[in-house]
Amino acid sequence: MNEPPRKSLSELLGIELPIVQAPMAGVQGSALAIAVSNAGGLGSLPCAMLSMEGLRKELESLRSGTTRPYNVNFFCHAPPQPSEAREAAWRRVLAPYYREFGVDENSIPSGPGRAPFTGEAADVVEPFRPAVMSFHFGLPAPELLARVKGWGTKVFSSATTVEEARWLEAHGVDAVIAQGVEAGGHRGMFLTDDVATQIGTFALLPQVVSAVRVPVIAAGGIADARGVRAALALGAAGVQVGTAYLLCPEATTSAMHRAALRSDRSRVTALTNVFTGRPSRGIVNRMVREVGPLSTAAPEFPLATAGVAPLRAAAEAKGSGDFSPLWSGQNATGCREIPAAQLTRELGQAAGK
Amino acid sequence: MNEPPRKSLSELLGIELPIVQAPMAGVQGSALAIAVSNAGGLGSLPCAMLSMEGLRKELESLRSGTTRPYNVNFFCHAPPQPSEAREAAWRRVLAPYYREFGVDENSIPSGPGRAPFTGEAADVVEPFRPAVMSFHFGLPAPELLARVKGWGTKVFSSATTVEEARWLEAHGVDAVIAQGVEAGGHRGMFLTDDVATQIGTFALLPQVVSAVRVPVIAAGGIADARGVRAALALGAAGVQVGTAYLLCPEATTSAMHRAALRSDRSRVTALTNVFTGRPSRGIVNRMVREVGPLSTAAPEFPLATAGVAPLRAAAEAKGSGDFSPLWSGQNATGCREIPAAQLTRELGQAAGK
Repeated sequence: MNEPPRKSLSELLGIELPIVQAPMAGVQGSALAIAVSNAGGLGSLPCAMLSMEGLRKELESLRSGTTRPYNVNFFCHAPPQPSEAREAAWRRVLAPYYREFGVDENSIPSGPGRAPFTGEAADVVEPFRPAVMSFHFGLPAPELLARVKGWGTKVFSSATTVEEARWLEAHGVDAVIAQGVEAGGHRGMFLTDDVATQIGTFALLPQVVSAVRVPVIAAGGIADARGVRAALALGAAGVQVGTAYLLCPEATTSAMHRAALRSDRSRVTALTNVFTGRPSRGIVNRMVREVGPLSTAAPEFPLATAGVAPLRAAAEAKGSGDFSPLWSGQNATGCREIPAAQLTRELGQAAGK
Repeated sequence: MNEPPRKSLSELLGIELPIVQAPMAGVQGSALAIAVSNAGGLGSLPCAMLSMEGLRKELESLRSGTTRPYNVNFFCHAPPQPSEAREAAWRRVLAPYYREFGVDENSIPSGPGRAPFTGEAADVVEPFRPAVMSFHFGLPAPELLARVKGWGTKVFSSATTVEEARWLEAHGVDAVIAQGVEAGGHRGMFLTDDVATQIGTFALLPQVVSAVRVPVIAAGGIADARGVRAALALGAAGVQVGTAYLLCPEATTSAMHRAALRSDRSRVTALTNVFTGRPSRGIVNRMVREVGPLSTAAPEFPLATAGVAPLRAAAEAKGSGDFSPLWSGQNATGCREIPAAQLTRELGQAAGK
């Protein structure tokens, strides 16, 4: 184990605890990020589902809510060309459910789903010069990346394989997030679309630590101080925790999502592409079971979202989460209804703080 | 974390290091087990593929090779009723490969595959009164289990879910092996056949540690001292390591299996049922890619083995591992051509020994 010394997350960012709150679009905004940053961790704002005006407002909330470092997170996929044929095939798969819920297929809008980082978004972010920006699905185009780095912002991105970790380091990231297959939400995979390459944190983390020299942040299955200690033992400079924050009062997790997380149902999750078009880990529900977990009919990310949206709305109106994405990692045992600051400090105790 | 104190593996067995060498049928016998036990770990003899005479000889080798505790491992599945229809369907799936390799389908013997623990096997084992017997796929029938425990033998078995861990504790095991999805070889799953329930070590281990009071042995993705430290941090009383031993000179791993483990191919493994009928993790090769990874046509464990055997033999005769099971966990980075004793001591250093 003659590893070169590398910076801890605290040294890299000047934060007290090596705890990154995972950005989770749809279930949290600036309130959770502020609470985590003020507690000494790194709070994250997920921006994939925000309008430009929403983005500006959330950044203003962050700036007024904390003087500590925070992370602004974007997806950076290439938006696909919509295909009428694929969309029609997807609607055929969903047709029995439209009928069941009385959804008029012709009234279904094709929503935007998730937006990638763009020059327009960079214009909004620039005045805030966040300490960190993290990306999912690789990195933005070189000129956009250079612009972000020019602000003095540290850049993180997720790797799900050793190859992706090496690619990210070669393209200039300041830290790699090693996303083990236990993690909830979207797989950050960008050099492969083969889910067979997606491996557990115990296997991925030490391989990534050995493969790159930048700090490595462990993600996937970490729910409490034991998990943080284990990740540090495997060579991580810090950890990223998502699922455990979902019951905090600062999260905007829906009541049905919270109920699923509190129940034994949370023990069975799957990587499914039926909600967005990309593999993402969530609690198995009717949509995942009957249409997925991995459907070849689902349009490319994020286009699959539009077809499911009216079903989700109709089912939720009846109090059912059967067609809602119930994102969760494989270890929901850390979920407690406690303030995010308390959770952050408890996780951070593992680092001897 | 107010956990009740529980025994370490060293306290439970009187061994020096909390390292169990995973039993791996087909790639090791008593030589590896002896080396590990003599180095202070717990060596294991896999018995699923041994005849009664072979079993006796291996146990005699163990007894003459070490005075330390060792583990005798059996599968304990209920042998299925062969189904002519399923076998015929399986042979139809394999027919193109029989033609490609010039295998005469009518000359194919239907081999036994893997045998479970029986009264006859217990008769052979009894005089040796091993310190430990470990089981895979649950536990043997109550009277057989009682007989084993009557020898003073400690009983271990694998759990792949919290439910299985609780079941094993309720049925009297002395330790639970929490088998994370990273692990190579057969999934020990016995209360479910849904692979979606199989989760990573980071998620499974702390949940099992919280769910039972007996010592928990971590398995899956542990390849070096960092991994051992991490498992102990997550509450494990010890670890079970398999893949890392596969290149040791005491293992009987084939040359083509060794070559695959040393190559980058070892980064992509899958849970596949095409070699035996049960999900088992191995390096992806042609058979897994084209017929699997999970085939609904594969006969019940262990009956799928017979149809593949002649293909495997024909391909191996041409120097190809395309139809051989190349069992491996998700982290083959611990594989080195060093004596098993050295590997065992290096793994054990993590425990401060």
